[in-house]
Amino acid sequence: MGGSSYGTIFKITTWGESHGKALGVVVDGCPAGLALSEADIQPYLDRRKPGQSRISTPRREDDEVEILSGVFEGLTTGTPISLIVKNTSQRSADYGEIASYYRPGHADYTFDAKYGFRDYRGGGRSSGRETIGRVAAGAIAAKLLSLLGIRVTAYTRSIGPIMADLSAFDREAILRTPTAMPDYHASLRAESYLRDTMEALDSAGGVMECLVEGMPAGIGEPVFDKLDACLSKAVMSIGAVKAVEIGDGIKVSEAKGSDNNDTFYMDGSKVSKRTNHAGGILGGISDGSPILVRAHVKPTPSIFRTQETVDKNNRDISVQIKGRHDPVIVPRAVVVMEAMVALTIADALLLNMSAQTEHMIQFYHRPLL
Amino acid sequence: MGGSSYGTIFKITTWGESHGKALGVVVDGCPAGLALSEADIQPYLDRRKPGQSRISTPRREDDEVEILSGVFEGLTTGTPISLIVKNTSQRSADYGEIASYYRPGHADYTFDAKYGFRDYRGGGRSSGRETIGRVAAGAIAAKLLSLLGIRVTAYTRSIGPIMADLSAFDREAILRTPTAMPDYHASLRAESYLRDTMEALDSAGGVMECLVEGMPAGIGEPVFDKLDACLSKAVMSIGAVKAVEIGDGIKVSEAKGSDNNDTFYMDGSKVSKRTNHAGGILGGISDGSPILVRAHVKPTPSIFRTQETVDKNNRDISVQIKGRHDPVIVPRAVVVMEAMVALTIADALLLNMSAQTEHMIQFYHRPLL
Amino acid sequence: MGGSSYGTIFKITTWGESHGKALGVVVDGCPAGLALSEADIQPYLDRRKPGQSRISTPRREDDEVEILSGVFEGLTTGTPISLIVKNTSQRSADYGEIASYYRPGHADYTFDAKYGFRDYRGGGRSSGRETIGRVAAGAIAAKLLSLLGIRVTAYTRSIGPIMADLSAFDREAILRTPTAMPDYHASLRAESYLRDTMEALDSAGGVMECLVEGMPAGIGEPVFDKLDACLSKAVMSIGAVKAVEIGDGIKVSEAKGSDNNDTFYMDGSKVSKRTNHAGGILGGISDGSPILVRAHVKPTPSIFRTQETVDKNNRDISVQIKGRHDPVIVPRAVVVMEAMVALTIADALLLNMSAQTEHMIQFYHRPLL
Amino acid sequence: MGGSSYGTIFKITTWGESHGKALGVVVDGCPAGLALSEADIQPYLDRRKPGQSRISTPRREDDEVEILSGVFEGLTTGTPISLIVKNTSQRSADYGEIASYYRPGHADYTFDAKYGFRDYRGGGRSSGRETIGRVAAGAIAAKLLSLLGIRVTAYTRSIGPIMADLSAFDREAILRTPTAMPDYHASLRAESYLRDTMEALDSAGGVMECLVEGMPAGIGEPVFDKLDACLSKAVMSIGAVKAVEIGDGIKVSEAKGSDNNDTFYMDGSKVSKRTNHAGGILGGISDGSPILVRAHVKPTPSIFRTQETVDKNNRDISVQIKGRHDPVIVPRAVVVMEAMVALTIADALLLNMSAQTEHMIQFYHRPLL
Repeated sequence: MGGSSYGTIFKITTWGESHGKALGVVVDGCPAGLALSEADIQPYLDRRKPGQSRISTPRREDDEVEILSGVFEGLTTGTPISLIVKNTSQRSADYGEIASYYRPGHADYTFDAKYGFRDYRGGGRSSGRETIGRVAAGAIAAKLLSLLGIRVTAYTRSIGPIMADLSAFDREAILRTPTAMPDYHASLRAESYLRDTMEALDSAGGVMECLVEGMPAGIGEPVFDKLDACLSKAVMSIGAVKAVEIGDGIKVSEAKGSDNNDTFYMDGSKVSKRTNHAGGILGGISDGSPILVRAHVKPTPSIFRTQETVDKNNRDISVQIKGRHDPVIVPRAVVVMEAMVALTIADALLLNMSAQTEHMIQFYHRPLL
Repeated sequence: MGGSSYGTIFKITTWGESHGKALGVVVDGCPAGLALSEADIQPYLDRRKPGQSRISTPRREDDEVEILSGVFEGLTTGTPISLIVKNTSQRSADYGEIASYYRPGHADYTFDAKYGFRDYRGGGRSSGRETIGRVAAGAIAAKLLSLLGIRVTAYTRSIGPIMADLSAFDREAILRTPTAMPDYHASLRAESYLRDTMEALDSAGGVMECLVEGMPAGIGEPVFDKLDACLSKAVMSIGAVKAVEIGDGIKVSEAKGSDNNDTFYMDGSKVSKRTNHAGGILGGISDGSPILVRAHVKPTPSIFRTQETVDKNNRDISVQIKGRHDPVIVPRAVVVMEAMVALTIADALLLNMSAQTEHMIQFYHRPLL
Repeated sequence: MGGSSYGTIFKITTWGESHGKALGVVVDGCPAGLALSEADIQPYLDRRKPGQSRISTPRREDDEVEILSGVFEGLTTGTPISLIVKNTSQRSADYGEIASYYRPGHADYTFDAKYGFRDYRGGGRSSGRETIGRVAAGAIAAKLLSLLGIRVTAYTRSIGPIMADLSAFDREAILRTPTAMPDYHASLRAESYLRDTMEALDSAGGVMECLVEGMPAGIGEPVFDKLDACLSKAVMSIGAVKAVEIGDGIKVSEAKGSDNNDTFYMDGSKVSKRTNHAGGILGGISDGSPILVRAHVKPTPSIFRTQETVDKNNRDISVQIKGRHDPVIVPRAVVVMEAMVALTIADALLLNMSAQTEHMIQFYHRPLL
Repeated sequence: MGGSSYGTIFKITTWGESHGKALGVVVDGCPAGLALSEADIQPYLDRRKPGQSRISTPRREDDEVEILSGVFEGLTTGTPISLIVKNTSQRSADYGEIASYYRPGHADYTFDAKYGFRDYRGGGRSSGRETIGRVAAGAIAAKLLSLLGIRVTAYTRSIGPIMADLSAFDREAILRTPTAMPDYHASLRAESYLRDTMEALDSAGGVMECLVEGMPAGIGEPVFDKLDACLSKAVMSIGAVKAVEIGDGIKVSEAKGSDNNDTFYMDGSKVSKRTNHAGGILGGISDGSPILVRAHVKPTPSIFRTQETVDKNNRDISVQIKGRHDPVIVPRAVVVMEAMVALTIADALLLNMSAQTEHMIQFYHRPLL
């Protein structure tokens, strides 16, 4: 256990601390024969890199991924794919002070409560750098999905009170704006909002959203492993996320059945829905409409104001956190959400291949070599 | 797989369809020596029974639980506890018609897409009756937790636009009102709202909330199996839930760090927090404050208005659903949420027992017999 | 956990004690669309019934199986299949005495050491009746395999020193002889041997073997979940088994490489092997030859001679076990071995469907409805 | 899946191919607070190194382990421990030829059948080098066990027909002889036997045994996860193993119950057994006696004689394998067996901590910080 593995067939195990020698992930169960190189993975890691704009921390993290196993002559072999990213620029000195107390909003206290002590350097395992392994593995899942015509896209929907205008969804803007918003104008306003927030020695939260297009119907397991239940876990497991919505999400609690039900109709020979309040999932199984997941992210807990807290000797103290911190987590977490959703969908698709007796018979009547 | 198992150490497997011979659950991994009888479980099942008021379906479901294994001389033995509830009053005739088409908002279409066909009687495995196994198992988890001084309480927070007033939280009202609200006044207003909704041949959604009091700090695994991630999956796996929040939930996206951080202070010799925006979980691990989970439930999809849909032969049709259906799902789902949360917490507590080398050494230096 | 679940995709959970109300199994992950009724399962249970000959216990066990869920209109639905067998003729009185002491060769002491106490009636969960769930589930797996042209056959190879002559393998004899030997003559000699053993108030061991014919090559996972590793666990988990062999088994330790290597050759267009020392598995993956597994079973520990042991109050005592017991376990365990092998093979086949990217692409380009 | 993970709480995931950049393992779920450095692990890896004597391959493998995560200030932190061993001296040129055909006794054919192609360099993932991760992880498990007074010792029992004399068991000899036998004299004879075998361009098999001393009673789960079942899987998953025995193993099939039953007696205040035919496990749960596991290992399949086989184009061919190969696998596999047994025992001990309600109550009444 230990909680660092995710997935049933497409299964990943991440490892590494903020200031250790390296971080990485082992992907076991990726089907053989997928063309893969570092060039498929690096762009995803680059999207979570800091230091790319005024609104992210000026820390430099040159997170270069290396494939250590599981790929031969450019193709996955079906055996574990080990990916590593070396830690190059971490300076433990920056963080020495926090060894002695519990930062509000961080996991310092809870790690001590669980394990008796903690690797305090840069947050150790609870650092945002833990997501490197998720993103690297997610890039592989996303490539696999692309071969099936499935596209996973995450973006920033809002930062603090500033909402992106989704009616003018600009896919390119997601990669080009420092906020990862699909809307250049909203992004500028959000940057201005973040500057004000930083000047006030404060931090902001926001909302990110993820869209899965091209999903076949019938994916997901009933009861406990419903596709939306798995997606919720996947997304809620990302550091600062405090709420997850599927489709209309929180709005359903005030809706009427007559509004919330999506009407089925025939779109040519395809069963379709006139609306998508359900967010592409009915009874835990995909219905063929796009899947929509939304996550609410809390403000960065590291703020520069003086805060009250307690130290390891159980004394009340005042602290002022130093170092370099993003004023908002969302823009760099967007690619983490995209990775977690891609991993969940890939796993569900692989698992679903064994759902029908008839498919099994067809499969094994096919010559295997 | 198949998705009908939940948990790692305290692990349950549910089975049964709405109109099959019986439904049940096997609980494997419940520690030995827990005093247990049907009397511990039946009250939980009674809370999800319909027919108890005007605002729930007049269908009768006398769901009487029987323990078939795993208990000897009044104590759990450590081996699987098999619980069964026989289906007595299900009449398949009521549902024959829905065999031929896909009800909007239901899982009819997605089950066909996944499995090629479905048990259409009363929704089959996707029926709300599937939760019987969850609730029966959850009652055992709750009893185990009570021995550790941990209390799990779920209740209705709102139905449609009618909110319970939590400042006047009345625990007794949860069990006494037909809405499961902890507020008699709000409950009366909600009942009136539901009557209007029914008259309009429509249905309502709502919000339910679950509180875990008495939690020790240090419970939950980091990274993928964070306690909040597990709780999200647990709660989102309940039929009509479309959003899950932890602590302040969706509010965090517009909060500032200076507001959202919970300040630590010493409460005597105990590390405490002055606020609980985090909902009792930091970095995926419990912090000793009460855990708060919130779930948004969609309106009952079975409404009596004429609806457009498609049939199994891919033709557009109009349908009018018959039968007896709750105008709102929330009041009967509250105990299901309580069960899922209790199961998740019990499992996390058992898993956490092996987190420290020192504890392992102490354990095995204790005489075992 | 608790250890009563087996399998990854085709996953079973058994429950029940020797003298409880019932025993059963939940099968989750069986593909939808398999024709199934009690008539497919009962013959397997009948093969493990006692009281069928002089060499098995005269206890009557009318183990009649009932399907409670997961089958609709004669086909599996993809949801959990719950099977139950009620205990009808168990008399606790027979076993009351053994509550107070530890029978040599039994699990009485170890259950007390683990759980603090035990259900002592008839061995409780450690009784041979625990295998009812395995056999019932195995019958379903065997039916699934039969549709793929795979046949699993277990039989008694020897009882004490009496070996069946496999060169005159008689499949019919397995079901007709009281020993489950594929050889009528050896069976008669084994019966005579067992009569002598019983007269001497003693018991005998034996060897059982299982053959899997029609296996495709390429099944099994490398490293920890090798097909032979999984088969070993499956077979060693049966009560009295103390050794498991694959193919030539223990003989390999004295063989030379030049003898033990199986030479490949082309048999028409099929890659074949001139010998099968490997027992159909190379590197943990099936090679297309028949799979051969062998299990060594200890003598029934319940013997009628006076034995030394200790009681629950830690006193040395002499005991004489009463009741009715088989003089040899093997004949009734043969069908349990067949079940465990069928379950393992079915699961491996389902898991293997997701091994290649190309197969995944083909699968999802096929219309799903 | 993919089969490269092992364990439930103490869980490892190995990765790497014979000729890839590196091999390694991620250990998740090791309790926090265990003192650990590379110096604890390297001696275990050194025991599986070749090139140490005339009877092992002269290939050089300087397998130096590095801890990349999960250890802070000399103690495990409870988070994943990533271990890496870089491949330094692998020359792919040696193996290029085997790309085109299937070596008898190897997994070349079965990997192609499963995945469509394979990394043929040095056997890829099916190489003996795969065991590096197992051994490195096993060293950690062994250290944890040592703190509980549990010692795991594996050794060579026989090579071909040459048996070690266990009545003169010499623990030191295991590490000092090139055969890993606990008997210097037998070792010399085995070396002589191996020289003859090599001259005959042939290879030998053998038997290895593993002893677990200091086990508490009560460890292991009933039914499918019996301790002996888990040990069987663990040991059978090692490359060339074809049979596994527990305690008396294959001898039980010809024994009588009166001989095979181990008599309990009081040894002071401790329940003991006068004999240990059971090998320390009754009903799948440890009984407090030493655990004994035996494994039969096939002769090295790579021999220098001309062999018949088929190539990838399905043509019958003759081949002569080149390169450097051990004439016997056993001496280097002994530490792999020790590792797999240690991992299995450690996991079972951790899992067992949650077996009793009373222990859980005691645990959570202890202050956690």
